Amino acid sequence: MSEPILDITQSPHKKAKPDPEHLSFGKVFTDHMLTMEFSRDKGWHSPQIVPYEPVSLDPAAMILHYGQTVFEGLKAYRGADNQILLFRPKKNFERLNRSSDRMSIPPVNEELMLEYLKQLISLEKDWVPAAEGTSLYIRPFIIATEPNLAVAPSYSYTLMIILSPVGSYYPEGIHPVSINVESEYTRAVRGGTGTAKTAGNYSAAYKAQERATEKGHAQVLWLDGVEKKYIEEVGSMNVFFKIKGEVITPELSGSILEGITRTSIIEMLKDWKIPVSERKITMEEIHQAYEEGTLEEAFGTGTAAVISPIGELHWEDKAMVINHRQTGELSRSLYDTLTSIQTGKLEDPYGWTIKID
Amino acid sequence: MSEPILDITQSPHKKAKPDPEHLSFGKVFTDHMLTMEFSRDKGWHSPQIVPYEPVSLDPAAMILHYGQTVFEGLKAYRGADNQILLFRPKKNFERLNRSSDRMSIPPVNEELMLEYLKQLISLEKDWVPAAEGTSLYIRPFIIATEPNLAVAPSYSYTLMIILSPVGSYYPEGIHPVSINVESEYTRAVRGGTGTAKTAGNYSAAYKAQERATEKGHAQVLWLDGVEKKYIEEVGSMNVFFKIKGEVITPELSGSILEGITRTSIIEMLKDWKIPVSERKITMEEIHQAYEEGTLEEAFGTGTAAVISPIGELHWEDKAMVINHRQTGELSRSLYDTLTSIQTGKLEDPYGWTIKID
Ligand SMILES: Cc1ncc(COP(=O)(O)O)c(C=O)c1O
Ligand SMILES: Cc1ncc(COP(=O)(O)O)c(C=O)c1O
Repeated sequence: MSEPILDITQSPHKKAKPDPEHLSFGKVFTDHMLTMEFSRDKGWHSPQIVPYEPVSLDPAAMILHYGQTVFEGLKAYRGADNQILLFRPKKNFERLNRSSDRMSIPPVNEELMLEYLKQLISLEKDWVPAAEGTSLYIRPFIIATEPNLAVAPSYSYTLMIILSPVGSYYPEGIHPVSINVESEYTRAVRGGTGTAKTAGNYSAAYKAQERATEKGHAQVLWLDGVEKKYIEEVGSMNVFFKIKGEVITPELSGSILEGITRTSIIEMLKDWKIPVSERKITMEEIHQAYEEGTLEEAFGTGTAAVISPIGELHWEDKAMVINHRQTGELSRSLYDTLTSIQTGKLEDPYGWTIKID
Repeated sequence: MSEPILDITQSPHKKAKPDPEHLSFGKVFTDHMLTMEFSRDKGWHSPQIVPYEPVSLDPAAMILHYGQTVFEGLKAYRGADNQILLFRPKKNFERLNRSSDRMSIPPVNEELMLEYLKQLISLEKDWVPAAEGTSLYIRPFIIATEPNLAVAPSYSYTLMIILSPVGSYYPEGIHPVSINVESEYTRAVRGGTGTAKTAGNYSAAYKAQERATEKGHAQVLWLDGVEKKYIEEVGSMNVFFKIKGEVITPELSGSILEGITRTSIIEMLKDWKIPVSERKITMEEIHQAYEEGTLEEAFGTGTAAVISPIGELHWEDKAMVINHRQTGELSRSLYDTLTSIQTGKLEDPYGWTIKID
């Protein structure tokens, strides 16, 4: 492919980099961002790298009224040899397009987007932190910009990619958390937008998260919206259970986000010859396994935490302590191996990582 | 109540008013808008009227990523005597607060908001069109503004009220439309956000609307997300059926928006001594009534159309023509009476309208 044309406007002042010891999540942004416009007549056009600066939107811009928007989340890691690595970024642009399809947003050229992203990261390479567990979080998103209060897809869109240096999810080391199984609020339902990474799904979850926090739990476990029986996700992560040596994760039922970490974990387990199945699984089944002493491990998976072990599961009046609130052996191996591949500490046997020159 | 303090910055140039004969919906906005800010330490503060102008948002503003936002829609009408009337505006601010509660947004002072709105409309009174069926559409909305990619409620919000002169929903007179009953996509589900007027619910509906349009229908009829059996809403309207003299509308099940037109229609029917019930109703029951010849009328209700008669209903392979595709007698009476109350043509027996001095 010929080098894509991308206008670059350098930022006149460079910001001070944050203290690498005290990085948080998603609060500090780099000097530049990528923007691209869509109009009905020109399609996607005018990709450019510009200084990070406020966006100006008409108060009637459709994103502000009807939430027509999609986003992605991935990370750039600084490897031991100072190389910068992306983890399966194509999958993020593929998923962006699937989300866009659900939300009636026009698709982008996935290959081009990856080239643009590489150029952006390359320009901002000094912002990729080096400390253990840190990374540069990448947030591509598309917003509907047409100023029109009609309830209909927008004629115009803006795509942006912003970058944020983020700290380790586990400053004190990986550790299991307590989870509240939510029986009233629903995150998503078949026929809805749960398979898309779109804004409305996330704020819809705040009430349940508040309830979990009040009860002293870290996250919500979501049940299906129809029968309130089948397990779907945990917080904004996919979820896995290890029962009698078998690893089980909910199948992609039409209301679950297809996580890239989820896909990678399944592929690793298959490679490791550990039985893994994607199928429907109920809280009842989990509780029964717990009672029988065969619920060995449970963990969430996602770009932010990679693996988030579950130490306690609270469902109605039942409290289940998993693996003595310790990180399980398999959870630990998956975490260590995957993070080592992502950061280039371990040779990548799967061809998942992409180096940025 | 003492006069609330509201800073007003007059717009230096006034825009030309649109041709009253060719008003569309939500594309043209007046010279001024109202804005108000929320911060954790100050609460809601700094209400002001400023020139209508773009909003400047950090690219990481939470509204753009997680959709934490609510809105309202109501209208100001120019009465025969040139008076400007609002229709039950308190109900809109009450509903705004209920929506905000669902979305973890801090509530506003409803009385104060109404006072501010009156001042805004008063300033923009020349923008309220006079022709039959036209009005000034009022769009209050709140957006999460904190620049932070953490999935959590925002610390800061902006409330805005923008105004748009809108044309008649029925430039050629009230007429029945064809409706497609959607069996796959879901608008909302119990435990979700369907009871709130929040952005994500609306773009979630675009796919189904596209499908209806392709099939030549005007709108989607939504079934419940759980059993795909019970009728919920039609497009962005509540829905009513007249069967054997009784008027039936779906009960507020936890996934339906509580329309102010719906409430008003129910109150009018009771006043008129016409049997009306809010209860669960299935497509099966509608179809059976149709087969038996007892499905007399069907119509949607909402601020935009007031009453939107349903002329055809397409469900799976069944096509039902209602009242020979004519506006029913009751639909017509409700439309005429309600629009006459709203515009002051008929004396308001219910105390629903509020005059703006
Ligand atoms: C709802 C939801 N589920 C699961 C995931 C995990 O996906 P991934 O592994 O691609 O980060 C995410 C994204 O982080 C998400 O937003
Ligand atoms: C989803 C939905 N249902 C119903 C309605 C009708 O509500 P109202 O009569 O208050 O306009 C609206 C708003 O217009 C709506 O957005």
